[in-house]
Amino acid sequence: MKKKFNIAVVGATGMVGQKMLEVLAERDFPIDHLYLFASSKSAGKEVEYRGKKYIVEELKESSFDQDIDIALFSAGASISKKFSPIAASKGVIVVDNSSAFRMDEKVPLVVPEVNPEDVEWHNGIIANPNCSTIQAMLPLKALHEKYILKRVIYSTYQAVSGSGVKGYRDLKEGIQGKDPICYPHPIAFNCLPHIDDFLENGYTKEEMKMVNESRKILHAPSLKVTATTVRVPVFYGHSESINLEFERSFKLEEVRKTLEEMPGIIVMDDPKNNVYPLARISENKDEVFVGRIRRDESIENGLNLWVVADNIRKGAATNTVQIAELLIEKQLL
Amino acid sequence: MKKKFNIAVVGATGMVGQKMLEVLAERDFPIDHLYLFASSKSAGKEVEYRGKKYIVEELKESSFDQDIDIALFSAGASISKKFSPIAASKGVIVVDNSSAFRMDEKVPLVVPEVNPEDVEWHNGIIANPNCSTIQAMLPLKALHEKYILKRVIYSTYQAVSGSGVKGYRDLKEGIQGKDPICYPHPIAFNCLPHIDDFLENGYTKEEMKMVNESRKILHAPSLKVTATTVRVPVFYGHSESINLEFERSFKLEEVRKTLEEMPGIIVMDDPKNNVYPLARISENKDEVFVGRIRRDESIENGLNLWVVADNIRKGAATNTVQIAELLIEKQLL
Repeated sequence: MKKKFNIAVVGATGMVGQKMLEVLAERDFPIDHLYLFASSKSAGKEVEYRGKKYIVEELKESSFDQDIDIALFSAGASISKKFSPIAASKGVIVVDNSSAFRMDEKVPLVVPEVNPEDVEWHNGIIANPNCSTIQAMLPLKALHEKYILKRVIYSTYQAVSGSGVKGYRDLKEGIQGKDPICYPHPIAFNCLPHIDDFLENGYTKEEMKMVNESRKILHAPSLKVTATTVRVPVFYGHSESINLEFERSFKLEEVRKTLEEMPGIIVMDDPKNNVYPLARISENKDEVFVGRIRRDESIENGLNLWVVADNIRKGAATNTVQIAELLIEKQLL
Repeated sequence: MKKKFNIAVVGATGMVGQKMLEVLAERDFPIDHLYLFASSKSAGKEVEYRGKKYIVEELKESSFDQDIDIALFSAGASISKKFSPIAASKGVIVVDNSSAFRMDEKVPLVVPEVNPEDVEWHNGIIANPNCSTIQAMLPLKALHEKYILKRVIYSTYQAVSGSGVKGYRDLKEGIQGKDPICYPHPIAFNCLPHIDDFLENGYTKEEMKMVNESRKILHAPSLKVTATTVRVPVFYGHSESINLEFERSFKLEEVRKTLEEMPGIIVMDDPKNNVYPLARISENKDEVFVGRIRRDESIENGLNLWVVADNIRKGAATNTVQIAELLIEKQLL
């Protein structure tokens, strides 16, 4: 008989939390007991999982006194900062979807197809990378292994669901002319070069997440990376224009084959038949879609890619659940 | 007394043609007689200019037998290919907004703030560059003069009005769930990495326009340029993420000052106060908005910019009218 586990979802009523439950059910995750936590505001709400109703409990320090094997956190960085160490100290393994611990040297940052070995050295907390980083890691890892990355230039086209229900609302109501609440400017029919807060160096935190997390996940601490991250009027699915420079020369056909062979990637690249990755095609899919594969003639060993994934699934919920699955597979749970 | 000119607008009922009339009126262009031409389908329509009604005439070879000084063409490449040489042979100076002659060595390709000197060697036809190229040329020229460009990487976020009324319709009705007519995929809540036709090298024509036109306008035939051009669900205003590499080192404050001093540019770059260029702010403006000015630390002398302009105005109608004004200023008309 397959062993079953006691699972907690922290932030169970949020957009990502809800998607985590959907993904856990779809993938038939071996759950014995399911605990759902949220803020006091959402506590008491009823949430369904596989036809059974659960009452959402208020998240407290004592929540983790219960017999929980693994807790999937998606309740924001401040909640994670406070409660993840408490959970870990009580023997719960935390997979944290916030930015709180991603760059902590003692915390692995994992994309299961890319650096599964990193879950092995966890100390109770494993971080799930930023959505825009996760999807880029699959093609970059596949190609880095073969051609060695020198430089990465990201320009992103990110969906409003990355900001949760408020971002979704801003677009939905914005197209009817309502003022934004979540964003400082209207997102409807507009592109905002502004995701997360601005830093002293003129970059946003989102941009620096892409820079720093890419290096950590690829184990390439001196990889040259720059990013411009942009919110676009799309509900689901982040798109990315990625310009790459490699140490080694490549044949375009080899690049395509390498990408096709990478688990988790679907190559969609038949432009003459209008086949290329699209945000709306990525919706509710777990794969990363890669297309517009073409040589950048402006530099030696240059390559342009267009990479799309559902930011709430592969960019958040699915990757988190995959990390939990990996822990089971490696008998670390 | 100021001399007045006989002006023809070819494609007068189209989106850009209409905007040309608006811009001519706003700028008080010295018009004596105004001729409006369009296809037989639109001939006979009434169009207003400064409170006076004009009947749109069908475009014919004989149209240019009339006393016309300058013809502003915006009726697509095939119309331009056929009728521009006829007009020119009859002594009419053509300013052509199509792609028909842009890369013709005998035809100057002009952005008035950037390469005004090129109008002087025209042979009857002057080409207006592609919308996404025009707006990039202003900051690139200003910086190229000072620091010498080595490499340019464009990722664009282009408005549907670049496809004319059909593109506009696809977005407007697409948000209500209607199927697209203009584009091969829904543009509502989606990003299409596909503008104009695909070429054998995997690039779109739009991408290669940005590469080739940038080199021609900047008089930098071996400039290294690559592009990924993307249609986004925005009505008006193209946004561009531009990554630059220069020969010479720079101070960021100098870069900002250089951009501020360039005619036609408005620097909007106060991110801490949420001030940066936006498509919706660019609507109906003639300037190019530049912001998110920041050093790209991944390379020596690297810079990232975010550049936005109204694609129908500075990207098309305004630039065309400015070329006509330049011809007057230089007494070439």
